[in-house]
Amino acid sequence: MTRFRLTVEFDGRPFMGWQRQSHGPSVQQAIEEAVERITGEVTGVHAAGRTDAGVHAEAMAAHVDIARPFQPFRLMEALNAHLRPNPIAILAAETVADDWHARFSCIGRRYSYRIVNRRAPLALDAGRAWHVAVPLDAEAMHAAAQRLVGRHDFTTFRSVHCQSDSPVKTLDRLNVSRYGDDIEIEAAARSFLHHQVRSMVGCLMLVGRGKWTADDLSDALEARDRNALGLNAPPDGLFFIEAKYPE
Amino acid sequence: MTRFRLTVEFDGRPFMGWQRQSHGPSVQQAIEEAVERITGEVTGVHAAGRTDAGVHAEAMAAHVDIARPFQPFRLMEALNAHLRPNPIAILAAETVADDWHARFSCIGRRYSYRIVNRRAPLALDAGRAWHVAVPLDAEAMHAAAQRLVGRHDFTTFRSVHCQSDSPVKTLDRLNVSRYGDDIEIEAAARSFLHHQVRSMVGCLMLVGRGKWTADDLSDALEARDRNALGLNAPPDGLFFIEAKYPE
Repeated sequence: MTRFRLTVEFDGRPFMGWQRQSHGPSVQQAIEEAVERITGEVTGVHAAGRTDAGVHAEAMAAHVDIARPFQPFRLMEALNAHLRPNPIAILAAETVADDWHARFSCIGRRYSYRIVNRRAPLALDAGRAWHVAVPLDAEAMHAAAQRLVGRHDFTTFRSVHCQSDSPVKTLDRLNVSRYGDDIEIEAAARSFLHHQVRSMVGCLMLVGRGKWTADDLSDALEARDRNALGLNAPPDGLFFIEAKYPE
Repeated sequence: MTRFRLTVEFDGRPFMGWQRQSHGPSVQQAIEEAVERITGEVTGVHAAGRTDAGVHAEAMAAHVDIARPFQPFRLMEALNAHLRPNPIAILAAETVADDWHARFSCIGRRYSYRIVNRRAPLALDAGRAWHVAVPLDAEAMHAAAQRLVGRHDFTTFRSVHCQSDSPVKTLDRLNVSRYGDDIEIEAAARSFLHHQVRSMVGCLMLVGRGKWTADDLSDALEARDRNALGLNAPPDGLFFIEAKYPE
């Protein structure tokens, strides 16, 4: 048995999310079925993060155990051939220690959220950014975002379906930058609650359009109540961009 | 009658190109039909460049004459509403002089061509970049590209269907830059021949993979013969990004 680490890019639009679901296609199922077609082995593929329906990944980390001997490069090539025509690409494959775990060994996760802030609808980036037609003040969003950085009870920013043991997380970074019509929000933490990034982005949008002040954002955080959430941003603009591991 | 200048973004994948065709949908037809639904007027929409099937635009310039009075902003909003669900967005509309012409007044055109140079197929950028799996030397491509800059007879790099009076054009800029796995090629000229950018990019790819030298590229140019063309790059990676006008 060899454990392989995979780096996976995917367009989330056709999928119910990373995790296997009975009611529709998932990234996990597509990769597991590709492994089975190549090796004849039924095995599980585990990821650093379980993204929602419509959320994308530039570089999701995952692992899979395979009994049949494989050169990592050959495994990558075979997986890519069998994943067609799904919008899933295995960017890299490497052997790792048997106790390396894409989810439990991960010590840092990074997401990027992209807003296109202009009047006109999206032609080139439909499904891959959040279109916000009202003008947003990205500097005010960035300033308010710093209220969320640090160790907090993020109950307000957590889906009711979240399975995490604790709502307390440490947010390492939440940066908002504007490049022309594009607003990019970068979020980094050891781990996130279910819907946390989208919930934070939704409330930052309210700050950007002047409906909320930074104090309103602090009040929502301190309420520790999902009902205090202003808005949950759509999945379209969210990309999983990095998983960090020791050494 | 008022002449409006339009700035148009579109995803070229579902279209036969800019120009109206009898055998399939075009960007021109979609916009003309939207104008007709809004105003009841049958009119022509003219663009700075007639892009091929599958070629995209970040900011194509176009113009249209409309008899019914319209605020430019209202026209933009109405066009965007009626263009749905086509992946076409009117980014801006403004009134211009009656003798302003999107094609004939244009004094500079700029295209960007994007190659993703990696082993894995494209998940996020399928249809919006050229996937080249063999390693390319972008510096060699940039150095060779300078052989094409200036005033030349570009017959080799011209489609047999090109309707231009002369194959002589002045290429102002052809820059090749690498950003990680992305190779971006920027081409600027007063005007281009049909297929010129894709034909230049195709040959530069041969230089990048070491099949052609810069001298081979010069020989192809000097041959003034379409049969000397090494390769025509696919439309997927090509974006019309700017049209320039006087003042």
